[in-house]
Amino acid sequence: MDIEEDSSYQKMINGELYLESNDLAALRNDVRKKLMEYNRISNNDERNSKIKSLMKSVGDRFFVEPTIYFSYGVNITIGNHFYANHDVMLCDEGKITIGNDVKFGPKVGLYTPQHPLDPSLRRTEAETVAPITIGNDVWVGGGASILPGVTLGNNIIVGAGSVVTHSFPDNVIVVGNPAKVLRENKPKSK
Amino acid sequence: MDIEEDSSYQKMINGELYLESNDLAALRNDVRKKLMEYNRISNNDERNSKIKSLMKSVGDRFFVEPTIYFSYGVNITIGNHFYANHDVMLCDEGKITIGNDVKFGPKVGLYTPQHPLDPSLRRTEAETVAPITIGNDVWVGGGASILPGVTLGNNIIVGAGSVVTHSFPDNVIVVGNPAKVLRENKPKSK
Amino acid sequence: MDIEEDSSYQKMINGELYLESNDLAALRNDVRKKLMEYNRISNNDERNSKIKSLMKSVGDRFFVEPTIYFSYGVNITIGNHFYANHDVMLCDEGKITIGNDVKFGPKVGLYTPQHPLDPSLRRTEAETVAPITIGNDVWVGGGASILPGVTLGNNIIVGAGSVVTHSFPDNVIVVGNPAKVLRENKPKSK
Repeated sequence: MDIEEDSSYQKMINGELYLESNDLAALRNDVRKKLMEYNRISNNDERNSKIKSLMKSVGDRFFVEPTIYFSYGVNITIGNHFYANHDVMLCDEGKITIGNDVKFGPKVGLYTPQHPLDPSLRRTEAETVAPITIGNDVWVGGGASILPGVTLGNNIIVGAGSVVTHSFPDNVIVVGNPAKVLRENKPKSK
Repeated sequence: MDIEEDSSYQKMINGELYLESNDLAALRNDVRKKLMEYNRISNNDERNSKIKSLMKSVGDRFFVEPTIYFSYGVNITIGNHFYANHDVMLCDEGKITIGNDVKFGPKVGLYTPQHPLDPSLRRTEAETVAPITIGNDVWVGGGASILPGVTLGNNIIVGAGSVVTHSFPDNVIVVGNPAKVLRENKPKSK
Repeated sequence: MDIEEDSSYQKMINGELYLESNDLAALRNDVRKKLMEYNRISNNDERNSKIKSLMKSVGDRFFVEPTIYFSYGVNITIGNHFYANHDVMLCDEGKITIGNDVKFGPKVGLYTPQHPLDPSLRRTEAETVAPITIGNDVWVGGGASILPGVTLGNNIIVGAGSVVTHSFPDNVIVVGNPAKVLRENKPKSK
């Protein structure tokens, strides 16, 4: 079955309140098992190729250090020339879209799910998600967290350990918790 | 032997300065080895059941993503309906008590040990601990750290990447490093 | 071949802009494979002994919980009596020098690489590094990040979740993002 036809998937990806369907749960379970296996493959080409195969779309030059985890994979789109250091987590209940020439330091986390604020609703496991979009030439420092709904433009540097709670436009260095602009960082003219 | 009868364990759990006894070290070693093995089990029921068996008491509906680590397990009490995402660490030298309907994001760390401030004492490995208590309906966001002695009430949301250095009462959203109240979040009346 | 004779290695370690040579890449690949294997060894002595063998120099009483990662190992020097809790990451593109009686909590990250600020240069994979030096009797709390170029003196405590962006002298407790001095912490006189 094509998971994109699943009504629960459609609600999820559209940002509506949803409960995980059996098909979504089965997909997640399959991805979990495969990642547990793939993360243990010491041959880099084989490991990266298998991990890549679980994602929706990935360009050339994809390299991830073990161990990487994500939830479904089918909501992850990555451009060319991507590198992720050890222990990166991509919570792709919402769509995660990453441009070209992007580097993630170790222990980076991208979090798209938002549990409900009301506790009685939160107990039901119903949740909503908000997508994360990352432009080209973005470097996310080690241990940084990117929160639901964040869009980062092109040529952004996120300092190690930062918590990015809202979006930023092109050509900035952002640091802190919550992350704020440290300074502009325009590309050198040629 | 019942570890709770060990005099080193009793000092530890009572918040006194203690050195790890041979029996405590043996328990920790056993738990380490078992967690290394259990975290590699791809069948969810089997993995969760075995991990749960190392803890003091756990209610129904317990699900942890691999890899989870804790120190002894015997100091961890968890209510019903617990979920922990990947790479959670529970340093349970002190007691860790978690209520019902609690969710941990990826990379959450609960830290109960406190090494001595004086370096010559710290070198001896002597340490004290302070317990962590978490109420019902608490959601701790990805990458957040909870420090020794913290008590969180019911219906608390801890923002991703927050560092929780002191206790908070019911019905608040806390964020930042150190975590502060962002706003109240009372449950909806029925 | 002695990697220290590699011209790319020499540029790297001298803080010049460098591209990873084939020999450096081969070393890193070898270390990655070995760490993936060694981190799964449940016997503590065997695991620690093998991990230690990948580092430049390590003193007595070395204990690391699984899983630890580093990039090359040859740039890591550690004194006597070192303990690292689970999931520590040492990015040793630059030299990492650690004194005696040092403790790292879980999920600590030491980051020596600095990708270029200009995106067109960053895309080439060229980078510079800055060393990290940690004195004696330092305790780095869980989840803390130490950034390129930082020197920590003796008897420093880094609070859990802190992001250490610059150097600190002896006898202080530092916390926050960015980390600042919370207070002095002189050793007790005998």
